Order: sequence, then structure tokens, then C-alpha cells
Amino acid sequence: MNEFALIDLIKASCSGYRADVRLGIGDDAAVVGIAAGQDLVACVDTLIAGRHFPLNTRPEDIGWKSLAVNLSDLAAMGAKPAFALLALSLPEADADWVRGFMHGFSELAKQFGVALIGGDTTRGPLSITVTAMGFVPSGKAIRRQGAQPGERLIVCGALGAAAAGLHFLASEPECGRSKKLDLSQQLHRWVQKLDRPLPQVDIGLRLRGVASACIDLSDGLLSDVAHLLRASDCAAEIDLPAIPGYCGLAEALGTELAQACVLSGGDDYVLVASIPELHWEQLRLDLKHYCGLETATIGRITSGSGITVYDGRGQIISTARTGWDHFG
Amino acid sequence: MNEFALIDLIKASCSGYRADVRLGIGDDAAVVGIAAGQDLVACVDTLIAGRHFPLNTRPEDIGWKSLAVNLSDLAAMGAKPAFALLALSLPEADADWVRGFMHGFSELAKQFGVALIGGDTTRGPLSITVTAMGFVPSGKAIRRQGAQPGERLIVCGALGAAAAGLHFLASEPECGRSKKLDLSQQLHRWVQKLDRPLPQVDIGLRLRGVASACIDLSDGLLSDVAHLLRASDCAAEIDLPAIPGYCGLAEALGTELAQACVLSGGDDYVLVASIPELHWEQLRLDLKHYCGLETATIGRITSGSGITVYDGRGQIISTARTGWDHFG
Repeated sequence: MNEFALIDLIKASCSGYRADVRLGIGDDAAVVGIAAGQDLVACVDTLIAGRHFPLNTRPEDIGWKSLAVNLSDLAAMGAKPAFALLALSLPEADADWVRGFMHGFSELAKQFGVALIGGDTTRGPLSITVTAMGFVPSGKAIRRQGAQPGERLIVCGALGAAAAGLHFLASEPECGRSKKLDLSQQLHRWVQKLDRPLPQVDIGLRLRGVASACIDLSDGLLSDVAHLLRASDCAAEIDLPAIPGYCGLAEALGTELAQACVLSGGDDYVLVASIPELHWEQLRLDLKHYCGLETATIGRITSGSGITVYDGRGQIISTARTGWDHFG
Repeated sequence: MNEFALIDLIKASCSGYRADVRLGIGDDAAVVGIAAGQDLVACVDTLIAGRHFPLNTRPEDIGWKSLAVNLSDLAAMGAKPAFALLALSLPEADADWVRGFMHGFSELAKQFGVALIGGDTTRGPLSITVTAMGFVPSGKAIRRQGAQPGERLIVCGALGAAAAGLHFLASEPECGRSKKLDLSQQLHRWVQKLDRPLPQVDIGLRLRGVASACIDLSDGLLSDVAHLLRASDCAAEIDLPAIPGYCGLAEALGTELAQACVLSGGDDYVLVASIPELHWEQLRLDLKHYCGLETATIGRITSGSGITVYDGRGQIISTARTGWDHFG
């Protein structure tokens, strides 16, 4: 298969459709219309084989994840996703692999009304760079900056499952994915969280105009919340047992590993936001009603700098390892 | 240097400024304002070390080129560049390399008023993926589709120099870049064309509303014109000696190598367009007056399919090798 057959295959496997796409895949660049009163929100993320996903990850899951991590960034801004560009570097033009990849990619794209409008394919080590674009009403994007002392720190889902899955895959690469092995449903669920994160787009839209700051968790709770706090010039206190997912993991894996998974594991793709008390009750009800989410308060924004994590009995937990540094 | 120091370095070295950037590098995504009546034009291109540039290319030149190839795609659409996202995969976080890279990138960005609004850095084999975005008045983008039989096929600059430079670098990797060797100015000029292509943004703006179809030459004249012809459902006849750059290269390198360089060499980043006779004279004068360009007519659009190249004496030249296939 040559490059152009590959592009045709990608084009054919991508079912996303939007009326505002004036020119999609197949020209020097894509052209899209922009409704008045909107700001454009744009981000880019690269996934490298063996670094951002285990080498034996199914192409369907890589396709899904490569878009999901970007939609999660848009969600953190309160943006509605619209378009994506795909830069695919492949060791060889393997049609089956590309079909699988596009299947996963398109499945998620369709779910959120995202059109794949262009891209680039080249031969090289397996690496996927997706650019995602979306919209917010002008001036309404949620930022990392804006949290105020006294506000609630909330998380919009359970943490640590993907990290737990990765932990087991690292020790037994095939265990989470093989149906032949007798595995706990638990482990399958963890690996599913790792392979198929669901970006919290609808939750991000509900947070717009309500949250004073927001970030998505990709590198780990401590690391990502630290970004939000630095941008907001604040500190935070977090109650470990209040973190959704922690107690279940602690029971299954012991407290030490569970703590590492929820605080520093990464790959959660869950939103964390700072919520003024005034908005909390209504937001909690809205997220439950519209998104089926039991939102958890995990702590408070305070003045100063840094994060203090408590063990639930008033003791401070040491948090030396704070998350993922891609050059660490 | 860790990932965050690296991001700070990139942020600091990027001097692009635009009033419509509401939120640049440093959040989950960038936010930009969009003027009414504009379509957004977007593209992405990956450069991989050793494949899209020789391994010993200076980081300044890699930075320049990674943006240039994308601005050239925007130019082919008649778009005015505005924003870029940079996904950088590096084997190690080498501050000097990144400073050099950003110097070249920013130099070009400044020249065309492009703001770097976001990106991603990760550890991996050296690879650079740039997303570029620009604007055209609604519905006014130039496409590959639209050429009509009888129109002039024009090129907006000399072809083949970058390919000639690459040819010599491949045989003597250091020769084109070392100041110590006694080299012809010619070779230095060729390598300069390879390392520092200048995207024809202003020319693209002049072609808008005039050209019925346009494409930028990145993979080679025959390969790229074939895309334009397939999209337009037309054929073309090209006169080899009319191609700017050919005669000089033929004198320096012989006809065979010169022909390969201008027809299939690639890396030209020059616009090719189909121009109705009605618009030709005014366009020629405008491009000369405003862009200092002697525009060359290299042939005609005809009905049918495929490209026929003539040698200037009415003989057809065989064109079996038609350009660059990234998986060929």
C-alpha cells in the first residue's frame, strides 16, 4: 500500500460529518466555517508507542486514545469539540493496522461529532499526533487560572484505574488483554480505563460559567493540580480517602500502591475543578441529573502554594513523587 | 532540563504576538478569537529526522523548515497564516538544541505574523509535527480542484535547487554546510533552498480569486501537479525548458540529473497554479510588482488525464519516476 492508498483508506474509514467543513481531507489544507461569537480552542498531543501506550495495545484502542486525550484537553476548557487533524507516523503501511486504528478513532469522533478534516502520513517509528479544535462562546473558556482560596476542589470521576491496569500490564504484558486467561473482571476494567478513556466533554460544558478553574488529569492528580494551583497562585489541601477510586484500589492493591495510582498514576482523563461554594449545590445536582455523575469534593483551595494531602485521620502524607515528567 | 523547563524555554523563545490570541501556551488548550466572515484553514505536517531532513541539519534550520512546509500549504489555499501548534518529540531535552530550533522557528513565525499558541513535548525519536492555521474570506480558499482545459499552468519560482542540494549532501554529508571547505557558492545556495524554504504566502494571497486551482510543490512537480489534475479531472502538457531553474541546473549537473531534480526532486515549496487566460496578464504584472516575481508559464491544462512533458523540441520525455511516496 502506498501513501495515497493509505490516505484513501483513512478518508474512507472516517465517518465524521459536519456541515461547517467546507473542505476536508485531500487538499493542501482543510477549510472550515466559523460561527460568529465563538472562540476557537485548539490543542495537540502526541502518543508514542511504548511510552504513552504499551507496545501490544490494539490499534483500535490506540486510535480511540489518540483522539480521547485531546478531547479531554478541550473538555477542560469547557469547549465543544468540532474538528481533528491526524499526523500518523508508521513503520510500515499496514492496511489492517490502519483500519483498526481508524475504527477506534472514528468511534469516538462520531460520539462527539468531531470531523477528521486533514492530516499527514509518513514512515517512521509509530507515533500519533492529533490536533483537536473546538469552540466556546467568546471569552467563556475555563482556564487553569482563577481558583480562589475557600473554593471546593472537585474531581469528576474515579482515579487510579488506568494506572492500576498499566501496573499489571507491565508485569504481565498479555494478562489484561487475553480472554483466554482467567482474570478478574476488575483487571479488565482497569485495562479498559487505560485503553479507552472517555473524555468528559459534557461535564466540561456544564462546568463552563461555574468552575473558576479546571484542568484534566493526564499526568497524575498531584502534578496536574499543581499546574492549576501555580496558575491560580493558590495552594490546596486534599483528603486522600475522599478521592473516588482510592478506597476500592486500597482494598484490592493495598494502600501504598493505591495511593501511588490515584495521586501520581496518570492517564485518568478526569476533570478537576475549583468550584465557588455558591455554585456547588446546583452543579452537583446538574452533573448528577445530566451526566449521571456523583461529583466528589476531594479538598479545598487555600492560600499559599503547594499541595498537602491528608490520610483521613489528620495526618499529612508524604508526596515526593508528584507525577509524570516526559523528560524525567 | 525537565519537561516544564523545556516548555518555559519554548515559551520564552517564541516572540510571535497577535491581539486575537486570548490564551497561548500554558493551559490545557489555546484559545483564539475569530473575526467574522472568515473561514479557518488548517493543516499539519510531520518532519522526521533522516527522512525529511538530513541528520546533521542545524536545529535552526529544522525549526524554520518545520513551520515553512506548513505555511506553504496555507499559501496554496490563498490563506493568511495566523497560528501554529508545535508537537516536538526529542531523544533528550537538550536546551541548546531547543534554543536553536526555536530561533529558526520564531524567525519565520515573526516574518509572517504567526503566533505559536500551544503544543506538546515528549521524549522519543526526533520528530516535529506542526499544525498551522490561517484565514481566508469565507468561501474564497483556492483548491486543487477547478483547473479547466486551456488554462495556463504557472510556477511561482525556480524548481530543483533543494533536490540538487540534497543530492550533494547525500554523497558528501558535510560539504554543503561547512565553511571550511572550498565550495561553490552555487552549492551553498542549493543547500540553503533545502534548509530554508520560503513559503510563498504573499503570492498565495495574490492568487486568490485569480487562480482556478493551486497546489504547493513538496513531493515533486510531477507528483503534485498530478494531484491537482486528478482533483480537477484534467490533463496537462509541460515544457521542460520552460521550468524555471531547469536550464541552470542542466548546465551545472547535466540534463539527466537536472530533469530529475526539477520534475521529481521535491522540497521546492513553490506554488503551481492554473490561470485562466483572462487573468494572466494582470496577475503577471501584479506578481512582478508586489512580489518581485517573474512568473513562468510551464505549460497548459488539457482535457483527459495525466501529464505529458516535452523536451522543447517537440519530443515527449519519459516520466516514469513521478515523485515522492512516503511509503514507496
